[in-house]
Amino acid sequence: MAQRKGKYTIVFDDPPMIKSSAAIGSKKEAQGPLKHIFDVINEDSYFGQATWEKAESRMQQDTVTKALEKGQLSASQVDCVFAGDLLNQCVGSTYGLRDLGMPFVGLYGACSTMAESLMVCSVFLEAGAIQRGVAVTSSHFCTAERQYRFPLEYGGQRTPTAQWTATASGAAVLEKGDCPPFIRACTVGTIEDLGVTDANNMGAAMAPAAAMTIKHFFEDTKTNGDNYDLIITGDLGKVGTRLLRELLLQDGYNIEHAHTDCGLILYDMDKQDVHAGASGCGCSASVMCGHFIPLIKSGKLNNVLFVATGALLSPTVVQQGESIACIAHLIYLSSQKEGGRV
Amino acid sequence: MAQRKGKYTIVFDDPPMIKSSAAIGSKKEAQGPLKHIFDVINEDSYFGQATWEKAESRMQQDTVTKALEKGQLSASQVDCVFAGDLLNQCVGSTYGLRDLGMPFVGLYGACSTMAESLMVCSVFLEAGAIQRGVAVTSSHFCTAERQYRFPLEYGGQRTPTAQWTATASGAAVLEKGDCPPFIRACTVGTIEDLGVTDANNMGAAMAPAAAMTIKHFFEDTKTNGDNYDLIITGDLGKVGTRLLRELLLQDGYNIEHAHTDCGLILYDMDKQDVHAGASGCGCSASVMCGHFIPLIKSGKLNNVLFVATGALLSPTVVQQGESIACIAHLIYLSSQKEGGRV
Repeated sequence: MAQRKGKYTIVFDDPPMIKSSAAIGSKKEAQGPLKHIFDVINEDSYFGQATWEKAESRMQQDTVTKALEKGQLSASQVDCVFAGDLLNQCVGSTYGLRDLGMPFVGLYGACSTMAESLMVCSVFLEAGAIQRGVAVTSSHFCTAERQYRFPLEYGGQRTPTAQWTATASGAAVLEKGDCPPFIRACTVGTIEDLGVTDANNMGAAMAPAAAMTIKHFFEDTKTNGDNYDLIITGDLGKVGTRLLRELLLQDGYNIEHAHTDCGLILYDMDKQDVHAGASGCGCSASVMCGHFIPLIKSGKLNNVLFVATGALLSPTVVQQGESIACIAHLIYLSSQKEGGRV
Repeated sequence: MAQRKGKYTIVFDDPPMIKSSAAIGSKKEAQGPLKHIFDVINEDSYFGQATWEKAESRMQQDTVTKALEKGQLSASQVDCVFAGDLLNQCVGSTYGLRDLGMPFVGLYGACSTMAESLMVCSVFLEAGAIQRGVAVTSSHFCTAERQYRFPLEYGGQRTPTAQWTATASGAAVLEKGDCPPFIRACTVGTIEDLGVTDANNMGAAMAPAAAMTIKHFFEDTKTNGDNYDLIITGDLGKVGTRLLRELLLQDGYNIEHAHTDCGLILYDMDKQDVHAGASGCGCSASVMCGHFIPLIKSGKLNNVLFVATGALLSPTVVQQGESIACIAHLIYLSSQKEGGRV
């Protein structure tokens, strides 16, 4: 049985392990400093399909297939897949996973989906409801841009606070066992909204959600930034990163020395013209699944917090004058199954 | 610990109970034969708000608040809410629940969301990850119609196979305890797609998903239609109901004597001009939370299967020629905490 710590945090008694993970990206991701983390780079942003939506579905299917292959597994050996994405009705996931025949739990957490899917999958494992699960998400620059902002052909100017939606996907296979990394605990996010209405400044909108969830976790576990090798947020970018650190400092938590953000490291911030950084479900998913999870697996990192942030807006509510409601879910990953911080 | 039965079914060791539930509807729902099941009828389809999306959010917030009130609880006593809806980015849930401050797990299962949220909440309870949760969903005729089909002002003709999206919401409060009804088991759905492309015939598209999930449950538990007082699907309507029964007969399961569909009973099929019946997340959610859950609570029903079906399409993929991928999740509810069918 999982134990609750405080009001928001779930600590696993028999922590699930991440058996394998995979990341797929496209052309722009291959031009960045993390090009080596991708299992597959497909420079064709259509992924051989007729539309961008089908491309995103294909990318997500390929990522799950690759993660299973790295774990020497087939789809029929998976009890449940936990998936979602940014597209209306989460069709990137539905249509991407349709042919794999796995029992399917659809999630919506916008760019927090990688943390949400790892969390829900871990709880299903802890309950004994499944023996093996897959957590996956994706984003695609072209599908997201036209759905949330403008037709690509329009060539709209991007503001300095805008972030670039990654064309990428990450997937992880979870089961019980003794090989790191282990998912030791998670903190379920609350919906935070400080009134930001600028849909081109997601970092500012999401930072308060990240700050709140991290604060909840620190309070619940009586730890702080000094207890972790790395606190990885995704995807706050330049603006949100600064705000997050400021907000946590106001609560007495200094995380600067341990903090990084997936939106700041996926692309070359000087040369790739991505303004405030990367974003999209696929950004933190691929950076975690392709980069940080392997680093914990190999023992180079030991105690890591992964805090994925999502802006839960729709274009419709923004047009109706609503501010941007956001959420962040936190996953505590460790190279150790016992001991550590919880 | 939950036990897995067969490949798809999760049987709870310490089954969660439904402490309280509530249903809210609007004008058309009040004109139907189930008008008495609603805790609140708001004849104003705007629910006092400026837009339909805000109306749906308000309805969902009111439904959760009412379910908590009936359980003599406040939002601060809830460990997590599990919610989703039909709107792009699930904004009915996000913006409806934003002010309640509860930890939030966003789901997307289209009209299967009530079963999905009950399932995920039950697993969280079984794992010990939470002590109390709320499952909720909603739909609104006006938001769904313009998002999926036509502007309401257009006055488009509806085909005979079309269903009418309910303006309704249902919410249930779950915790561990000894008062019925109990959630004894659930079967996670698989994505099924037999190639239906007519977005005005959701019943036909969804029936195969319902048939597959029911078949999986019967096989996993070695039971059949004779073992249950009622098998409640939602929302297949006239067309889907006939197809479901035919599909299951082909597999040797006759459920006709025990089967009903929320889409067939919410409205007066002769007088209310709803063509093939009701649909929308709020249809099965309100019919379950307002009608059937109380009937199990009072002992008038003992062993009930709730199979909510969802069409996971988006307007975009339909325009791109895709067929309609569907899913159904199953919940086995019982008035008894032990014994019974699993």
